[in-house]
Amino acid sequence: MPDNEIEYIQPGEIEKRSFEIIERELRQQGITLPRDQASVTKRVIHTSADFDYAVTMTYSKDAVSVAKKLVLDGANIVTDTRMALSGINKRILESHGGQAHCFMADADVRKEAEKRQVTRAAVSMERAMMIPGPVIVVVGNAPTALLSLYDLIQKKKWKPAFVIGVPVGFVNVVTAKELILKTDVPYIINRGRKGGSTVAAAIVNAILYGLER
Amino acid sequence: MPDNEIEYIQPGEIEKRSFEIIERELRQQGITLPRDQASVTKRVIHTSADFDYAVTMTYSKDAVSVAKKLVLDGANIVTDTRMALSGINKRILESHGGQAHCFMADADVRKEAEKRQVTRAAVSMERAMMIPGPVIVVVGNAPTALLSLYDLIQKKKWKPAFVIGVPVGFVNVVTAKELILKTDVPYIINRGRKGGSTVAAAIVNAILYGLER
Repeated sequence: MPDNEIEYIQPGEIEKRSFEIIERELRQQGITLPRDQASVTKRVIHTSADFDYAVTMTYSKDAVSVAKKLVLDGANIVTDTRMALSGINKRILESHGGQAHCFMADADVRKEAEKRQVTRAAVSMERAMMIPGPVIVVVGNAPTALLSLYDLIQKKKWKPAFVIGVPVGFVNVVTAKELILKTDVPYIINRGRKGGSTVAAAIVNAILYGLER
Repeated sequence: MPDNEIEYIQPGEIEKRSFEIIERELRQQGITLPRDQASVTKRVIHTSADFDYAVTMTYSKDAVSVAKKLVLDGANIVTDTRMALSGINKRILESHGGQAHCFMADADVRKEAEKRQVTRAAVSMERAMMIPGPVIVVVGNAPTALLSLYDLIQKKKWKPAFVIGVPVGFVNVVTAKELILKTDVPYIINRGRKGGSTVAAAIVNAILYGLER
């Protein structure tokens, strides 16, 4: 079916049809995604219509299984944007005991960031470390969140249980991702400049949906 | 400054620096954006790190001025996703008398969509037409929202004051955008498969920020 005709399709079938198209085009491009990563990378392509992610998405060993187990164990999620928080399927997360948080709009975070002349995202990471139990940090916007995390890890002040690192942009984004790749924290990271809140939410949701199948 | 070094920069300067990089790379690619569209297209590139948008973003005549005037006149905004709603700068919008809405999570919208076997986005558009005064429709996800709009316009049932049409995906996305281009409704549309809630919010925010400068 060419792109320029309307395909009449039941609402519930649209996502299935989209994934079929993605799988077909990956085959046409000669790309075979590793079996354990495919559900996440395909959902990122689904949310971005950008096949670059098939090449740049980077996973630590057994990353998807590790993340699933954390959710099953009731891990909390901390995001660096209200948009990513808004896009995450809280119903599934909370059914396993975890909650999703975003501290970016908190008045005390803003105040402290201004005082210290750092970003609110950096301060948010220090709030994340106060949460009891394992925390999955989800960064869809601010490379400074990853830089702050890297600093905490290096100084052995805190280690998140998992990092989903897909900030987007032009200043320090590439570097911040590469620094997290050097740590021993389990991760899903999109190398390069691309990412964003929709990509971050898609990764989290792929993990959550994987628990329901 | 290469991508692989940390650039030490004050938080307030990051966005300015990002736009300088975008402008430089556009020049290097030989791309000159039309003056009245540049602020919007650059903000979309800023939010996606994807220069494809420099080519695919499509504007009706004086689209940015038309949209600004609508906001100044107190137009309301209706989005097709909670994420886009979450990303829009409501403070500026509301300071001019408009409000941002998203009907997707409303129980009655869900119920009606199930009953009629259409998407919630399609039903949401029929809710949008009930809002008194001019409405800017912002579609970041569901091509069915645009198809539903096109149908309303064709049948002369309703005409939104402006359409920001940047759904993303693989089923009916390209076609739905092309149909809106055929109407006489003022628009900002990204042709092709790409778009999304972050892109939708970036377009709205570029218009809103333009009112403060």
